[in-house]
Amino acid sequence: MGTVVSLQKKTNRDSGIERLVGLVSDDMLRVNEMILSRTGSDVTLIPEVAAHLIESGGKRLRPMLTLAAAQMFDYEGDGHIRLAASVEFMHTATLLHDDVVDESDMRRGKAAARMVWGNEASVLVGDFLLGQAFKMMVDVGSLAALEVLADAAAVIAEGEVMQLVTTQNTATTEDEYLAVIRAKTAALFAAASEVGAIVADRSSEERGALRSYGTNLGLAFQLVDDALDYSGVQATLGKKVGDDFRDGKITLPVLLAYRRGDEDQRAFWRRSLTERIVEDGDLEQAIAMMAEHRALEDTIARARHYGAMARDALEIFPKSDYRTALTEVVDFCVDREF
Amino acid sequence: MGTVVSLQKKTNRDSGIERLVGLVSDDMLRVNEMILSRTGSDVTLIPEVAAHLIESGGKRLRPMLTLAAAQMFDYEGDGHIRLAASVEFMHTATLLHDDVVDESDMRRGKAAARMVWGNEASVLVGDFLLGQAFKMMVDVGSLAALEVLADAAAVIAEGEVMQLVTTQNTATTEDEYLAVIRAKTAALFAAASEVGAIVADRSSEERGALRSYGTNLGLAFQLVDDALDYSGVQATLGKKVGDDFRDGKITLPVLLAYRRGDEDQRAFWRRSLTERIVEDGDLEQAIAMMAEHRALEDTIARARHYGAMARDALEIFPKSDYRTALTEVVDFCVDREF
Repeated sequence: MGTVVSLQKKTNRDSGIERLVGLVSDDMLRVNEMILSRTGSDVTLIPEVAAHLIESGGKRLRPMLTLAAAQMFDYEGDGHIRLAASVEFMHTATLLHDDVVDESDMRRGKAAARMVWGNEASVLVGDFLLGQAFKMMVDVGSLAALEVLADAAAVIAEGEVMQLVTTQNTATTEDEYLAVIRAKTAALFAAASEVGAIVADRSSEERGALRSYGTNLGLAFQLVDDALDYSGVQATLGKKVGDDFRDGKITLPVLLAYRRGDEDQRAFWRRSLTERIVEDGDLEQAIAMMAEHRALEDTIARARHYGAMARDALEIFPKSDYRTALTEVVDFCVDREF
Repeated sequence: MGTVVSLQKKTNRDSGIERLVGLVSDDMLRVNEMILSRTGSDVTLIPEVAAHLIESGGKRLRPMLTLAAAQMFDYEGDGHIRLAASVEFMHTATLLHDDVVDESDMRRGKAAARMVWGNEASVLVGDFLLGQAFKMMVDVGSLAALEVLADAAAVIAEGEVMQLVTTQNTATTEDEYLAVIRAKTAALFAAASEVGAIVADRSSEERGALRSYGTNLGLAFQLVDDALDYSGVQATLGKKVGDDFRDGKITLPVLLAYRRGDEDQRAFWRRSLTERIVEDGDLEQAIAMMAEHRALEDTIARARHYGAMARDALEIFPKSDYRTALTEVVDFCVDREF
């Protein structure tokens, strides 16, 4: 019986993104070709590291947003292919640098690049991909798209630094946490969506709507991701349950459990996350406290709020398969296996 | 007497760059203001780390090249200020990432940022500066300048990865070594010089001449830098003599000493650089072998060759104070305290 339920859940989850995947599949093949050609280098370490991460089965959600947004407007050029590849490169560069910063062992169910090739290669190949991303943007020739993506690059890094500062501080407020994920995650979702409208030469109202969609989708995505870190199935998640806990990372589930807990429980969070004194059984105890205070359910409820904002942002567009597909992505992000 | 000689040398060295410094001093004030304003962030760690490196007294040679090149053509806009600041940010980002990759303790005579704030902050603040660099380039609005600088960003990272691969390999050829420094150092000198011509809307011949000037100046600069690592005065150099030796970094002085040495000497280089088994007195022995084979003198001779190419590249331009200043920079780079 358990197996049947699990399969049922899996089917539901996949259907959420199925329409989008189908609509952009032709373009996505071109994006993948572009990605492969732009990771080529005589320095063989570069394609090796890039392939390790790029072929490791991420969903390529961000580039799909760019493609779908451009296609929703019947865009007929090919600038969206390069912009989508740029977005994926920016994302991949961030992952490479994040793993160094977080000292992660795993990424998407495989050994993190830094474990195979060292921190040096992860930092430098990340820089290379970022440079290639900007080269592709320049090729497209849209200063407006360049502005949006360059701005996102700076904001993402700023968000990562902000996270570095809030990490281990249990006194972080929900607003401070939101500012971090708005920068480190939502900014790229927003830029990925907006440049689809830019390349199709749409009005500032339409650009703004897609930006708002991307921002709120990104917030919902990150909130669910942070909840999954304390509840997800390891194989589905592609990383270890409790990674955030071991890294002393302050996420909303922690903030809610900390605020709602009594003085003993707060002392537990300060010891394990601020002082980083972690004992056997601490992760289980953390999860139990989150259950006691409904911290995960309420994190998902917050995600639903941003998801609703994302859906409403799309309402100004005429009904179309693309709009439906983008709407379903919101459900997919919020209802991921949990 | 030793003191007098040393002062004499110092005066000679400073005069090489004095004319350039004087000519661009007004613009350089504006570049510095731009740099300060663009490292501002509510995330206080960012201005802290950036200020540590930016205010630590680098010569700002690269942005001065951009300014002088633009002014040589009587450029009247202010795009060169932003481009010069972008160039300095790209350079600073590279330094931050390099220190993490090389595990350096010192940079420009101060503790490396990573020793004060950790590797995490160095990686992320580097990313932030790179993002800000691209934002400033976009502000200038020149796709041609963006193309040149984005290309440089990718090539620099590629060169750093190449260096990672050649490091510790004493079988590296001089050509392979040149390919590394052409990418990791000369590419930014080339781009910095060329964008000065681009922003002033000059012909492709003039752009090419400045690109060639920058490339060869960069090669000469790096060759001398690599020689200084085995001979420089620590206070002048701002890093420890022998850093490259301790990092197992293969530079031209090593390559020449290795090739010209007998089998015992080659075994010494393989043990100390490839196997990284370094004993007391090894650095002194390495320096003695370099003296025996004139490895440092010949590295400087190679630098003079590229310096000559850099000077000749400028010959197509009418004589002017700017051309003279750019020529003197070549002498400055080749004749640095040694």
